[in-house]
Amino acid sequence: MNFKFSTRTADMNGTATREIFKLLSRPEIVSFAGGLPATECLPVKEVREITAEINSGDIVPVLQYGTTEGFPVLRHQLLEYLTGRGLPAIADSNLMVVSGGQQGIDLMFKTFIDKGDVVLVEDPTYLAVLQILNTYEGKAVGVKSCEDGLDLEDLENKIIQYKPKMLYCVPTFSNPTGRTYTTANRKEIASLTARYGVMVLEDDPYSLLRFSGTAVPPLKSFDSAGNVVYVTSFSKIISPGLRVGAAVGDPSVIRYMTVGKQGTDLHTSNYAQMIVAKYLEKGYLMPNVEKSLPVYLERKSAMISAIEKYMPEEFSHTDPDGGLFIWGELPETIDTVRLLPEAIERNVAYIQGQVFYADGSGRNTIRLNYSNAAPEQIESGIKALGELFKEKLAGRY
Amino acid sequence: MNFKFSTRTADMNGTATREIFKLLSRPEIVSFAGGLPATECLPVKEVREITAEINSGDIVPVLQYGTTEGFPVLRHQLLEYLTGRGLPAIADSNLMVVSGGQQGIDLMFKTFIDKGDVVLVEDPTYLAVLQILNTYEGKAVGVKSCEDGLDLEDLENKIIQYKPKMLYCVPTFSNPTGRTYTTANRKEIASLTARYGVMVLEDDPYSLLRFSGTAVPPLKSFDSAGNVVYVTSFSKIISPGLRVGAAVGDPSVIRYMTVGKQGTDLHTSNYAQMIVAKYLEKGYLMPNVEKSLPVYLERKSAMISAIEKYMPEEFSHTDPDGGLFIWGELPETIDTVRLLPEAIERNVAYIQGQVFYADGSGRNTIRLNYSNAAPEQIESGIKALGELFKEKLAGRY
Repeated sequence: MNFKFSTRTADMNGTATREIFKLLSRPEIVSFAGGLPATECLPVKEVREITAEINSGDIVPVLQYGTTEGFPVLRHQLLEYLTGRGLPAIADSNLMVVSGGQQGIDLMFKTFIDKGDVVLVEDPTYLAVLQILNTYEGKAVGVKSCEDGLDLEDLENKIIQYKPKMLYCVPTFSNPTGRTYTTANRKEIASLTARYGVMVLEDDPYSLLRFSGTAVPPLKSFDSAGNVVYVTSFSKIISPGLRVGAAVGDPSVIRYMTVGKQGTDLHTSNYAQMIVAKYLEKGYLMPNVEKSLPVYLERKSAMISAIEKYMPEEFSHTDPDGGLFIWGELPETIDTVRLLPEAIERNVAYIQGQVFYADGSGRNTIRLNYSNAAPEQIESGIKALGELFKEKLAGRY
Repeated sequence: MNFKFSTRTADMNGTATREIFKLLSRPEIVSFAGGLPATECLPVKEVREITAEINSGDIVPVLQYGTTEGFPVLRHQLLEYLTGRGLPAIADSNLMVVSGGQQGIDLMFKTFIDKGDVVLVEDPTYLAVLQILNTYEGKAVGVKSCEDGLDLEDLENKIIQYKPKMLYCVPTFSNPTGRTYTTANRKEIASLTARYGVMVLEDDPYSLLRFSGTAVPPLKSFDSAGNVVYVTSFSKIISPGLRVGAAVGDPSVIRYMTVGKQGTDLHTSNYAQMIVAKYLEKGYLMPNVEKSLPVYLERKSAMISAIEKYMPEEFSHTDPDGGLFIWGELPETIDTVRLLPEAIERNVAYIQGQVFYADGSGRNTIRLNYSNAAPEQIESGIKALGELFKEKLAGRY
């Protein structure tokens, strides 16, 4: 049979992350490739306690069909939680449960993107967004980033030039750079996009994982036009295996996203929703996040120290106050795409920075994840990488 | 803000089921509207036992990220289970876990349907399919059904006329009619679609719920060209709240569906996958299904008796050997769309048959669900409906 696939499949090649999960199973590999939260910080004890409690209650509503908007007990907890996160007051109609932040992104594109529509993204941006956009046959255009956040002049120019439907961004501890937009930068983005009628998808999976610096309000808190949709996830702060997140936006947008979700999975798994609801209800979230922060800080610091010790002088990098990633840049002569197999031979994995660029540039960049390796592993992995890069820079190709 | 939604949203109006879930919360309503499995048959005891067992084991892999294809322990169980269901021998590359059968349908459309592509559906068909197809801007064209299954002449004519990408069907205990295609009809569908290069999406959520008659092999078992994708779900035979199902097909199709799934939810909730895996492993599925069959048979029989007792003579209806639905047809003068509010005033709900037709016809038809009401409720609900229809037929409009 000669399959006549949809035209969107031509751009559906799976993301680098997909292939990377397979590498993780080789125990000798030090992987800086994934975006997994620290395994040591997963709330094993709490989830055991909560599931035992769910078991002792009436589980019939958990086993039966639920509503697409989300399990009422979870929605109730979310309204409180999200207000506490600095979002403006939220009504029932502003909120929906999603099966992980990924689904929030997918549903936003489903609601807004027609073939050929432009979505502005930070250069570099979360690679899965580029892939999801391909499934809607939209076009990603990169916006320059700067120390403060997005380069506002470039943002306005690109808005004028491309008339985009949407701006996608991760303003706090960005994936992949680890950078955080300043409050002033967020205000300007909110006002600029409102002025031009551009939707903003604020993706915020990491902001609670702040181990230094001062918290910055969500971009959504500066939204006066209703054009910002805020998507968050419990993957990095409770458990990614549950697949539970939330989306907040204008009621008309949330309604279309809900109808879209009805078509994709009817509703998020009730058992997972119940676990998150009880986790929030019992007040486990903040204490456990605080307990995990020293682990993340220790690992980030271990990576920064190792970088300073082993990386070539020419290696420039970010030094984030939270999140999971450090972003590195090498001289143009270093091609991180071509070097990946060699790195893996030396038992260390990373993600080539190229995949995070809308235009496929950035072959001299690299994303390093520090959250899921012990400090000793981080040292040995960065040492191996540093040696590899130094050899290449010395011309030993 | 004036939202510039995607053009697909113009057809995204939510399905009748969505609104119906809200009615279910009024306790005085007898609802024949939903498609919920019998609440009494949900495996409360077994799920309690299984979750306690999950708790006592290593739950770290359940809490951490998983692979898009599905949790290995579940995949292992599925290979065995599906072969037992009469599917041809399946390799690892033929299989993926989906977040309910609904997601299997969505991913098939994502993999094959471009704007304007035609999908043939049985007239009437599962209403959510029409909605999901709208989100891909495809076009549904109805194929006549007959006692044996699909009208093969009409199927071939429509294939020639519309050059469809795909045929969607529920060959066993169809939603909404409750009818089952004969073995001969399935063979002909498989051979006809293979000959013309048309994909088939065989949706099979109900076939284990057979309380009379003889089992028929899946359409997929007659697939020699690799054009049939089989989607099944544990919603009706374990629990819909878990959102776990499976898709089986050619490796190249499953690969695109997997990449598509990666973009929508990364993977199905691990906790739900573990529950289903252990449920299968412990051999709970078949004994529990068998225990539930008398409940379904009793309810169907109660509805058939009540129909014979209370419905107008002109009411024709199916009498299924399994599944959840009876399909009824009234004289053309009866408009089940207009009558629904009056029925609800009399405390009985149904789904107007019109929503199951690709062309919006069938205003004199009705879908009656018998699985989620007690026999006494079924009697009183059908009595109320019968009275309403008789009054209308007597001209008291």
